[in-house]
Amino acid sequence: MSLPKQVRIVEVGPRDGLQNEKQATPTSAKIQLIENLVDAGLNYIEAGSFVNPKWVPQMADSGEVFSGVARKAGVTYAALTPNLQGYERAIAVGANEVAIFAAASEAFSQKNINCSISESIKRFEALIAAAKQQQIPVRGYISCVLGCPYSGAVDAEMVANIASELFAMGCYEISLGDTIGVGTAGKTKQLIETVARVIPISKIAAHMHDTYGQALANIYAALEMGISVIDSSVAGLGGCPYAVGATGNVATEDVVYLLNGLGIEHGIDLEKLIYAGNTISNILGKPTNSRVARAMSK
Amino acid sequence: MSLPKQVRIVEVGPRDGLQNEKQATPTSAKIQLIENLVDAGLNYIEAGSFVNPKWVPQMADSGEVFSGVARKAGVTYAALTPNLQGYERAIAVGANEVAIFAAASEAFSQKNINCSISESIKRFEALIAAAKQQQIPVRGYISCVLGCPYSGAVDAEMVANIASELFAMGCYEISLGDTIGVGTAGKTKQLIETVARVIPISKIAAHMHDTYGQALANIYAALEMGISVIDSSVAGLGGCPYAVGATGNVATEDVVYLLNGLGIEHGIDLEKLIYAGNTISNILGKPTNSRVARAMSK
Repeated sequence: MSLPKQVRIVEVGPRDGLQNEKQATPTSAKIQLIENLVDAGLNYIEAGSFVNPKWVPQMADSGEVFSGVARKAGVTYAALTPNLQGYERAIAVGANEVAIFAAASEAFSQKNINCSISESIKRFEALIAAAKQQQIPVRGYISCVLGCPYSGAVDAEMVANIASELFAMGCYEISLGDTIGVGTAGKTKQLIETVARVIPISKIAAHMHDTYGQALANIYAALEMGISVIDSSVAGLGGCPYAVGATGNVATEDVVYLLNGLGIEHGIDLEKLIYAGNTISNILGKPTNSRVARAMSK
Repeated sequence: MSLPKQVRIVEVGPRDGLQNEKQATPTSAKIQLIENLVDAGLNYIEAGSFVNPKWVPQMADSGEVFSGVARKAGVTYAALTPNLQGYERAIAVGANEVAIFAAASEAFSQKNINCSISESIKRFEALIAAAKQQQIPVRGYISCVLGCPYSGAVDAEMVANIASELFAMGCYEISLGDTIGVGTAGKTKQLIETVARVIPISKIAAHMHDTYGQALANIYAALEMGISVIDSSVAGLGGCPYAVGATGNVATEDVVYLLNGLGIEHGIDLEKLIYAGNTISNILGKPTNSRVARAMSK
């Protein structure tokens, strides 16, 4: 067990976060948020999604967001893409990376996208072929890695198999998502140990939700395992659709504070990050879910 | 590094928690809270304080609370006591253990109790002598172990010296308090390593605040060091006087959830614990600070 010297933060607030907020966010506020995050030093932003707006109306303006953001060299502006069509729309507006997704639970896959896990992965073949040809990196998300809202416990071997398949297909990195936040530090370690048997530890990212308050403990456990890529959402944007009133994504500010304390490099200015999070929270008319932002803003 | 098989939870909600809530809690509600906590399986409750009510009006009724609680065999009902007078009042109403306190920061000691750290420790000599004679166990708190609201960083060696002194005086256990919640997992490990050089690890307790969202990560780090006594407050009772609107004590529910995930025994029924926390939160008219309670109550 040794902590990484450097961590890359994948900021998912503008997509995974805002997609799960009840009220719609104005396009201009999304653009401002992304620019503020880049100004704070984040160099990887999941900026939007090209899923059918019928299913995810909050992301219907992702094309305008991608077109409207003033780009900074060296920053990845990524898009979530469900299929070749979505991929093409994302690339047309200048997404320089895309993400695909699968669930680690058959029940979740059926309820969420109405097909089996293996069918869902098969659907991405055309997208990945196109991305390879255009040299667009593809990231893979696996959801429900530590528990499913419909079927409960999830087998770590199952997660490892899906991770291995997505990696073999061409995903350069696999993000393990505790979608409902039920995981604890011990289970996180077991999971990462199992997945790291089939793909290199440097290719695994941790995507933790704070629904049960465990996210930072899980992230600390993941860091101890050698994980060096952490997904997080500024201001903890994004609630939890499976537990009303509960929190969802871990707040980027709180992750950065943890990393600062551990002496791990990340390149982010905490004050500017808090500014970005407080600004979007004010626009949404809700308190920030970042405890660090709350403690440092008073 | 190896996790303990069993952890003892020191429930501080009725004292450290309620003392730091803005609104006064009715005596009957305090009694009900303590009884609910014992019903949930907690066997160590810090039930009140015998500090001058001029300074801590929220605890002015501690005598009535101790007298009113239906006692259960095997449960420790502890009192915070600032001096021999307070000790005698606590014992008169049946406290079966007392706690004394010192700060790890001279600035905090001066501002909080208007004397130096060594003077504050000297004041406890008479109390400890009386407790020894009556075979009443004395627990020692050290506050500001990972940072001071007035003077910033705190030296781990300083904490170790005070811990050593309190232990030598007769405290059977030393609780290390991150009073303002600024600590992170790395600093927590360094601190415990330093203190464990002068007193046995089995005599050290971790008392973490969640002001910066770090409490569970710090507790996990402490468990990895072999710490097996954790202080916590049901429903996260008790705010943070140094950051308005921020959270204070880590919620017992969230600690229990972490321990469950790690397979560590604690003897507490999580559902009954959530009931105890939600009941007092309703009486106080505020949402619970436990994320587990929020996620599991909807």
